[in-house]
Amino acid sequence: MALLKVFDPCAICLLCLVLSASELCNGGITGNFLRKEYSPDMPLDSDVFQVPPGYNAPQQIAGFLNHDRGVIISWITPDEPGSDTVLYWSENSKHKNRAEGIFVSYKFFNYTSGYIHHCAIKNLEYNTKYMYEIGIGYTIRRFWFKTPPRTGPAVPYTFGLIGDLGQTHDSNVTLTHYESNPKKGKTVLFLGDLSYSNDYPFHDNTRWDTWGRFLERNAAYQPWIWTAGNHELDFAPQLEETTPFKPYMHRYYVPYASSHSTSPLWYSIKRGSAYLIVLSSYSAYGKSTPQYKWLRDELPKVDRSTTPWLIVLMHCPIYTSNWHHFMEGETMRVV
Amino acid sequence: MALLKVFDPCAICLLCLVLSASELCNGGITGNFLRKEYSPDMPLDSDVFQVPPGYNAPQQIAGFLNHDRGVIISWITPDEPGSDTVLYWSENSKHKNRAEGIFVSYKFFNYTSGYIHHCAIKNLEYNTKYMYEIGIGYTIRRFWFKTPPRTGPAVPYTFGLIGDLGQTHDSNVTLTHYESNPKKGKTVLFLGDLSYSNDYPFHDNTRWDTWGRFLERNAAYQPWIWTAGNHELDFAPQLEETTPFKPYMHRYYVPYASSHSTSPLWYSIKRGSAYLIVLSSYSAYGKSTPQYKWLRDELPKVDRSTTPWLIVLMHCPIYTSNWHHFMEGETMRVV
Repeated sequence: MALLKVFDPCAICLLCLVLSASELCNGGITGNFLRKEYSPDMPLDSDVFQVPPGYNAPQQIAGFLNHDRGVIISWITPDEPGSDTVLYWSENSKHKNRAEGIFVSYKFFNYTSGYIHHCAIKNLEYNTKYMYEIGIGYTIRRFWFKTPPRTGPAVPYTFGLIGDLGQTHDSNVTLTHYESNPKKGKTVLFLGDLSYSNDYPFHDNTRWDTWGRFLERNAAYQPWIWTAGNHELDFAPQLEETTPFKPYMHRYYVPYASSHSTSPLWYSIKRGSAYLIVLSSYSAYGKSTPQYKWLRDELPKVDRSTTPWLIVLMHCPIYTSNWHHFMEGETMRVV
Repeated sequence: MALLKVFDPCAICLLCLVLSASELCNGGITGNFLRKEYSPDMPLDSDVFQVPPGYNAPQQIAGFLNHDRGVIISWITPDEPGSDTVLYWSENSKHKNRAEGIFVSYKFFNYTSGYIHHCAIKNLEYNTKYMYEIGIGYTIRRFWFKTPPRTGPAVPYTFGLIGDLGQTHDSNVTLTHYESNPKKGKTVLFLGDLSYSNDYPFHDNTRWDTWGRFLERNAAYQPWIWTAGNHELDFAPQLEETTPFKPYMHRYYVPYASSHSTSPLWYSIKRGSAYLIVLSSYSAYGKSTPQYKWLRDELPKVDRSTTPWLIVLMHCPIYTSNWHHFMEGETMRVV
């Protein structure tokens, strides 16, 4: 099994754990962090959940690092499909380039999603600031992102590390804490458990939408690397919803095929001096399974001379003293 | 975790392991069985693979015990869909009843399956011999099955136990050995690894068909309870076949919904004085996963006063000394 190194050579590492249950956790010898009491979700009319003005205006914008010199931009239009196009240009250029995406939608029990757009932009310059626009007419919204430097053994880069975010008042504190860090994280490694909408009756998927709007202020400007957690399973046979990860996989796209994976739940990308491997704690991972075979073929590809850091992301810690998830990681450790 | 009891109160228990690899296995203190040398598959023109005469004649007939007083009959017509109907009548009756089924088909790389029929027959009498017919015109084929007694704590019943069957010359010896046992097994508990067709180039699915024809001489007359093994995964990204268990799940139907399962890979049925739980070693089974949740809800339903025997079937042994599958079962044991 690969070694888990959560680390960045010249950068910050923020491990922000937010409450998902009212139980207390004593980290024992691994730390003295104590879970706080339960923090309630922010109400639906919170400013952080604000809908952008204008009919069918794009919302919930989020970026994802593609393999080498690429970005996937995702957004949702609530009323109709609207435009699939992203216009983008480097900071010092006047010429707007155009990329075309796709859109998907899904139903979950009594909920129907908006039009979820995913647009891959390729062949960008390294280490460059790009502006981009989505939407049409008076709903056009403009953001920017910075591309990473070329991969190499001594390339400085800054990762943030967030998991179990949710949308409580504490979630807002967590995100603000990350944003205000003077070391300025460039990419968030997200360790799973996004919106916690499954805690609501009927897994109320409008809480996926509020979460997307809450996150936009950061995720529209820098990539978030997604890992699936138990709250993404959304397995609800009582609602006749039996396809695991349905909302998550429609909403967040990752370039899994580029790393020869057959599922968006496990994949790899390279960034800076790091090789990132994302695994799924809640998919089959025993011998002979697709995830196992992929990881077995993937590990020999890690070249420590170009990417000295191997970072493996998975939701379920291999060792944990948390009562709420006691021994959950043991099975993966054994593999 | 449930206790694995492979046993029947007043009956036989045949554990027939057939070679799947050329390695030797030393059972150590658990037994002195030694794997023989590799046994080759029977050639395509073997008598046991014979195609029944007549255009589109039904072949590969197999039965599965449904929940309480029911049977699922499966068969394949190679050339066109043909009839979906099963005619059946109890031995002492002249009146033929009629049940309508469905058919499915699938593609796997360069192979296209025949028309795979599945027909559920319900509300049968206990402890009764039924005749049944499938096919039309001069291709009508007739078989029989016996329904089990009503479930109860002291009901005698006879299970056979077979796994890793394949279609080698040894497979034929194994099946013959089971058939000729004077104690006469009434239902086969099959522990996974059916046809081994994935060992052929392109997972040659015509070897699923030969296997189905080989088995018919037994499976048309008594139920086989199916468990998925690693050879059923048929995961072949190099052929762009990435849906695990595709041929297996099209060919063999089990009444999983009756036990509130959401997947044919895990389910339960009752038979005689036994409660049978079937699990999938190659699907996700960690905490929070669909299989885990199902098993957690299922175990309390076992009523030892009506079914004193709890038999859990899974392909991967929880403890094994076989080098070829060393530690494979450890992860499930930990759960």
